[in-house]
Amino acid sequence: MQVGIVGGSGYIAGQLLRMLAFHKDIEIKIVSSKSHAGEKLSRVHPDLLNILDLRFSDMNPVDLASRVDLVFLALPHGTSINYVPDIYEIGTKIIDMSADFRLKDPDLYREWYGFEHNYPDLLEKFVYGMPEFHRNEIKNSRYVSVPGCIASSTIYSVAPFSMLNLDNNIVTVDAKVGSSGSGSGTDSSKNYSERYNSVRAYKPVHHRHTPEIEQEIKYISGKNIKIAMSAHSVNMVRGILTTSNIFIDLDEPDALSQLREFYKNEKFIRLIFDRKSNFRYPDPKTVIGTNFADLSVISDGYIKRIVSIGAIDNMIKGAAGNAIQSMNIMNHFDESEGLLIPAAFPV
Amino acid sequence: MQVGIVGGSGYIAGQLLRMLAFHKDIEIKIVSSKSHAGEKLSRVHPDLLNILDLRFSDMNPVDLASRVDLVFLALPHGTSINYVPDIYEIGTKIIDMSADFRLKDPDLYREWYGFEHNYPDLLEKFVYGMPEFHRNEIKNSRYVSVPGCIASSTIYSVAPFSMLNLDNNIVTVDAKVGSSGSGSGTDSSKNYSERYNSVRAYKPVHHRHTPEIEQEIKYISGKNIKIAMSAHSVNMVRGILTTSNIFIDLDEPDALSQLREFYKNEKFIRLIFDRKSNFRYPDPKTVIGTNFADLSVISDGYIKRIVSIGAIDNMIKGAAGNAIQSMNIMNHFDESEGLLIPAAFPV
Amino acid sequence: MQVGIVGGSGYIAGQLLRMLAFHKDIEIKIVSSKSHAGEKLSRVHPDLLNILDLRFSDMNPVDLASRVDLVFLALPHGTSINYVPDIYEIGTKIIDMSADFRLKDPDLYREWYGFEHNYPDLLEKFVYGMPEFHRNEIKNSRYVSVPGCIASSTIYSVAPFSMLNLDNNIVTVDAKVGSSGSGSGTDSSKNYSERYNSVRAYKPVHHRHTPEIEQEIKYISGKNIKIAMSAHSVNMVRGILTTSNIFIDLDEPDALSQLREFYKNEKFIRLIFDRKSNFRYPDPKTVIGTNFADLSVISDGYIKRIVSIGAIDNMIKGAAGNAIQSMNIMNHFDESEGLLIPAAFPV
Amino acid sequence: MQVGIVGGSGYIAGQLLRMLAFHKDIEIKIVSSKSHAGEKLSRVHPDLLNILDLRFSDMNPVDLASRVDLVFLALPHGTSINYVPDIYEIGTKIIDMSADFRLKDPDLYREWYGFEHNYPDLLEKFVYGMPEFHRNEIKNSRYVSVPGCIASSTIYSVAPFSMLNLDNNIVTVDAKVGSSGSGSGTDSSKNYSERYNSVRAYKPVHHRHTPEIEQEIKYISGKNIKIAMSAHSVNMVRGILTTSNIFIDLDEPDALSQLREFYKNEKFIRLIFDRKSNFRYPDPKTVIGTNFADLSVISDGYIKRIVSIGAIDNMIKGAAGNAIQSMNIMNHFDESEGLLIPAAFPV
Repeated sequence: MQVGIVGGSGYIAGQLLRMLAFHKDIEIKIVSSKSHAGEKLSRVHPDLLNILDLRFSDMNPVDLASRVDLVFLALPHGTSINYVPDIYEIGTKIIDMSADFRLKDPDLYREWYGFEHNYPDLLEKFVYGMPEFHRNEIKNSRYVSVPGCIASSTIYSVAPFSMLNLDNNIVTVDAKVGSSGSGSGTDSSKNYSERYNSVRAYKPVHHRHTPEIEQEIKYISGKNIKIAMSAHSVNMVRGILTTSNIFIDLDEPDALSQLREFYKNEKFIRLIFDRKSNFRYPDPKTVIGTNFADLSVISDGYIKRIVSIGAIDNMIKGAAGNAIQSMNIMNHFDESEGLLIPAAFPV
Repeated sequence: MQVGIVGGSGYIAGQLLRMLAFHKDIEIKIVSSKSHAGEKLSRVHPDLLNILDLRFSDMNPVDLASRVDLVFLALPHGTSINYVPDIYEIGTKIIDMSADFRLKDPDLYREWYGFEHNYPDLLEKFVYGMPEFHRNEIKNSRYVSVPGCIASSTIYSVAPFSMLNLDNNIVTVDAKVGSSGSGSGTDSSKNYSERYNSVRAYKPVHHRHTPEIEQEIKYISGKNIKIAMSAHSVNMVRGILTTSNIFIDLDEPDALSQLREFYKNEKFIRLIFDRKSNFRYPDPKTVIGTNFADLSVISDGYIKRIVSIGAIDNMIKGAAGNAIQSMNIMNHFDESEGLLIPAAFPV
Repeated sequence: MQVGIVGGSGYIAGQLLRMLAFHKDIEIKIVSSKSHAGEKLSRVHPDLLNILDLRFSDMNPVDLASRVDLVFLALPHGTSINYVPDIYEIGTKIIDMSADFRLKDPDLYREWYGFEHNYPDLLEKFVYGMPEFHRNEIKNSRYVSVPGCIASSTIYSVAPFSMLNLDNNIVTVDAKVGSSGSGSGTDSSKNYSERYNSVRAYKPVHHRHTPEIEQEIKYISGKNIKIAMSAHSVNMVRGILTTSNIFIDLDEPDALSQLREFYKNEKFIRLIFDRKSNFRYPDPKTVIGTNFADLSVISDGYIKRIVSIGAIDNMIKGAAGNAIQSMNIMNHFDESEGLLIPAAFPV
Repeated sequence: MQVGIVGGSGYIAGQLLRMLAFHKDIEIKIVSSKSHAGEKLSRVHPDLLNILDLRFSDMNPVDLASRVDLVFLALPHGTSINYVPDIYEIGTKIIDMSADFRLKDPDLYREWYGFEHNYPDLLEKFVYGMPEFHRNEIKNSRYVSVPGCIASSTIYSVAPFSMLNLDNNIVTVDAKVGSSGSGSGTDSSKNYSERYNSVRAYKPVHHRHTPEIEQEIKYISGKNIKIAMSAHSVNMVRGILTTSNIFIDLDEPDALSQLREFYKNEKFIRLIFDRKSNFRYPDPKTVIGTNFADLSVISDGYIKRIVSIGAIDNMIKGAAGNAIQSMNIMNHFDESEGLLIPAAFPV
């Protein structure tokens, strides 16, 4: 199958490229970038040298889409929406990495993203690209909207408990995120000297992934659970850890069992339970370079709560990995094709 | 004044030593260490080379205490308690860095530390060494128990709001801690290759600083507030960030004003409110090497909560800094002596 | 083909395991470890969870070797030599990760490794496992000794220029090495707090890789060139950078051309020459997780020298990657099988 | 004494500010910055909050200089030179942090910096601000040009051996430099995701500090020694390590003795010789936040060379520290005033 990538110079596009380059059913035909048109991919993705000897095209997204079977849109939020309606007319399959088609309720775009979403009908065409919960829909769709990175780790961690009898309807989530999540831009807060060794809240309240998490929790459990998230950047490039407080009286064996049952057939979800390992709870360090989400849960006897922890590589299970897994399902490839990669442990 | 340090090879002792070395009212007379007796201090604290040319003594803690005016005990939890009763008899002033004399209720030692505390009368002699809340007691005491590092950041962040009308009596606290908090030991989880780039929950529930936080919040506000803490290690050596969710309907100007009023005369507490800086919320990066606690608070309009954030250098405001500030108060030195140090920013 | 790994708990063994687990011609049959016998592999190699659900065996190396077609010995220097003679009798193929069979001259073991090598005949059976220079020998051998990590980067960088007319017979090499090169041990110098942010010379003179570098340079160029190396540890887990000064009057186009010609058919050697990229010279960051050696050379007009720079992932092209590439050649598999892995860039 | 700082928003200016803020003989009167005029210092130097509550002025450098006793020029290379002639006319003392007045031979500016230096007479007025070698000149001067950071570490390491009988006249120097050396700018190579975990040659040949090193070595030894330097950036913010190969037949006790004698009365030069410490050779980690240069030397019996290693905090002994030490000497303050600061070890 021939694919194209729009917005090919960003980190998420880079991750798509390096994984697709080794995918046996895929030919990467065109990769566009406004700012890097004409340059070799390896100028900005140096690992691709001698692996993918293409140059960035300046082709318009719609023209690009007309020449391939499937297009990945790796564009900023609020930009995909400018091209999707026209691409939809052409019939090319779309996997959108932005938030523009994640939320089912168009009003939420005004509230959380600050723009008016004028394509509510298209919102219905897109499936939320989380294979574990939408596999059948993806199989029968041509349009996938890939979940946000923090959203992914949070949904994986909280969903298994959401249908239980919680003490209140608020789950607190503390997210710790690597720098790749905020892109390759050059504002001064991204300067290495400013960010190295830093642990900062960057969005302590009102993070944009909140509504998609609440939407999916509702989809899974039928319940209106509110997510009180605080997002922090930590001193690493790749990876997300989410620590969620769920107020419920549930002992640890029952909680672990609930988690195990919930994901029992899911190849890319792992339950961490070896408490004698140095890595006795999930840690992004152990999933770097892979499509795994590592999960565990701890029960607190002092305060009636469970702490549900999730770790992913933000660029893979939090972006390019779910995109490719969704692509595989949509196109009836082996669901794991291109996703079984040795981890870079330790790194 | 002549001081001695028992347990001088650990990181906290190192921090005491390098700060006391430049303190104009102090002479460091004896520094003991069982494992490094006979070695120069600079063997394990290499920055002290040519600054403090002493060797570690193997002197017994009580003997050591008998030769100085004030002794710092930098021993593991459950060890100080073996020496304090005898030192008390001698009359030497004591600043204990461990948890052995922090809690007023002896029963809590059984529950949280797993040992029976047989000196409830001595517990009453010790003042909790947080100058901002116990200045007068410290001034009139000879015995100070220095607060735990996570406890310090949490108490500073939560106390100013604890007397308000909270929606529930549980505050969730997510702590992110540098490696120096867990010492210079050599178990495999401390190996650089295992820990670098890692973000791990190491104590997701039932952290031992919980009861001292609750004790102090009760002391300040009169209320029984429960602390639901999860402690994580992050990829840095120094520093703690705590992010606390307090469920209350309070807008941001009122919250900031509450914080400012609460600490208005405190030299070592800073309120972070410049939202245009790269460091618009507290970040340990900006306090490394100093005795400051940087605080701020953000109000969430979506979920009725405030997020109160604190950042300290765990080895200074979370340990040696409060110890020296307490020593200054106790001995009627200038409270800031030895504590006004240029930060190591950026580092 | 069935393989076994002796000494399976170290980092290099871990890297072999995670790469072999996805190798289509290999079945991993037994993995032994004295210190972790009975434990799951994922206890120490957490990324292998759900990928390779074996337990460490305590089987004797010779017994283990008798049950497989090929054995990887991932043992400390001076230990492999105790088992190789007996395994040789059995006829199992051997890939030795240690230095015990790298040097052709047995006397060098006394000088550089401090032990007497009593099997000079076996030294002749082993091929130095650098596919680029020994491909035909490997094809016809059953015994491979895998090059040292710093040696690999240095040989790749220096060899292409060694036959030219150098101004003197000394090449200075400055090596910068990640922590994984020194293993998962627990002496205090490996403690995270001691090593983070550190840049240390750890072997400024007389590094043990010196004689194997000189041996191979001699093999390639026929010349006795002396290597004046200083090895440093830097603040990262994976990767090696070597910077070599070669005193010769050679302009940059000629030097780059020399490098390109020398490696023109080598799939895993890349020449870095895009001077407009952020990665305009080799950097381990761009090869992490891959089997590539990235090379470049710069000519100095001020002092008549060229600076030849090499970057590898020390655990892959510096160890497990060359081991597997050698295994592929020896067994007539596709030489690249198991070695085409997406990089973990950026990480 | 009243001082002003021109170019106050950079990292070196920040370091001057935080050290001068605690200097008992200094009042910081004006700090200018074009790009941050009107903003509080703490916007870009967050550690200065509540310590130095000034705002950046947009005052012209010459006007600024006219209102203070001494001005620090923290401007890019090639910019100081535009203001120094006019400030010279006013008579204000000048400490210039740039390279514009470091070299005695004006022709070298054309060759190494690409501009024509039109003030050879002013070059003679400036003293090279390395107190260890120019103390008397500084005492009698009003104009100091502060050495470059890599130059400082190299000169300190190489000078003590430069008058000996070297085997050739070339010393190779490998420099490893933290990010703060390249400033707070925002080009994409400084993006955290691009630079974290990276070890890069950034100036493998023809580094601009070469001529000032050669000039000072000549000044000290009378010999024309050529410096073959390669500069690398490593994964840290602060610190420089230089490793220099000097080809001479000198055993280690003699080499250490040579070093000790050479610096015997220098308070801020430390000789590292405790080979049992984790820090048995110089490491910037042990000098972070201080004005020390840590030096050591190792003799190689295999190749007749010594390896001379130097470690400094690039922002202090490599910039602001030597500036302040020079200021103290020039103004007959205690030479150590403001420079005795507890290190931030470990960090």
